[in-house]
Amino acid sequence: MRESSIEKAFEKFSPSSCVFVLSIDENKKPGGMVASWHMRCSQEPQMHAVALWKLGNTQKLISESKEFVISVPNKSLEKEVKFFGNNSGKNIDKFKETKIKTQKSSKIKTPILTDATINLECKLVKKIDTKGDCFIFIGEVVAAHINEKKDKILFTAKKGDKRSFLEIW
Amino acid sequence: MRESSIEKAFEKFSPSSCVFVLSIDENKKPGGMVASWHMRCSQEPQMHAVALWKLGNTQKLISESKEFVISVPNKSLEKEVKFFGNNSGKNIDKFKETKIKTQKSSKIKTPILTDATINLECKLVKKIDTKGDCFIFIGEVVAAHINEKKDKILFTAKKGDKRSFLEIW
Repeated sequence: MRESSIEKAFEKFSPSSCVFVLSIDENKKPGGMVASWHMRCSQEPQMHAVALWKLGNTQKLISESKEFVISVPNKSLEKEVKFFGNNSGKNIDKFKETKIKTQKSSKIKTPILTDATINLECKLVKKIDTKGDCFIFIGEVVAAHINEKKDKILFTAKKGDKRSFLEIW
Repeated sequence: MRESSIEKAFEKFSPSSCVFVLSIDENKKPGGMVASWHMRCSQEPQMHAVALWKLGNTQKLISESKEFVISVPNKSLEKEVKFFGNNSGKNIDKFKETKIKTQKSSKIKTPILTDATINLECKLVKKIDTKGDCFIFIGEVVAAHINEKKDKILFTAKKGDKRSFLEIW
């Protein structure tokens, strides 16, 4: 065990799960991104947290709509994961560009992804300023959906500059 | 995609990374647990968050010492992961019982784990009440250590009542 740069340690801390974080604007138009920085944070009630860059578009959508969807992808959505991860919703309609399949949520207005493995509908409970470069959004999970045809979930791994995806379990 | 219980959706959301979360008491005696509910939450500065059950022992240690270590295990620590995960530090000295190998941190007082893949030293920045059953602890990562002899990290997976461990990447 030897001391290293913090950056290098996080590079080694791989792979990590990656999920779509989706929300809507004031016209109910959906937007979103892909994030690895997310975690469960309560079981009673069920809550999920996600850390989003303060200058990004998705954090703005969630701050205003007070809701979000966590959508857990599988290999069949790898192309869409890359597109959502590499483009900003400020300039582009990611849903329209990728033609990603969506369907209605049951308790919120943000749509869920039809081909994901899992969808979690969340109502915003708290937005926290970390004093770093992200806000943490804590949502109560108010409904969930699972895809009977899919079992695995997608992970992202980075070695040097190269990012790859692997489907696990 | 069909609606399911939230519990069932989280069961399907597997595997997940699991890490040791370590801290010290007022006599500098180390304690800790194993948690899957953790995430990065800032890059500038580097920060890491972990959600811990409000009634547990580790949250008490961190609340008082204002520091913690995130130690990322590999297969060689599977036995210790199970022990730390299945016992409460209120009744037992997990370090003593498992004889887990530790060494000095560089910037805080909580020790790091010699045989882990990665160790992150964190100074507490914020403790958040989620309004659920956990507190979220946000730490600034002030030092990091990597194990040149280890590359993989341990994941935990649950199918029904059965929990298993797999080493990935």
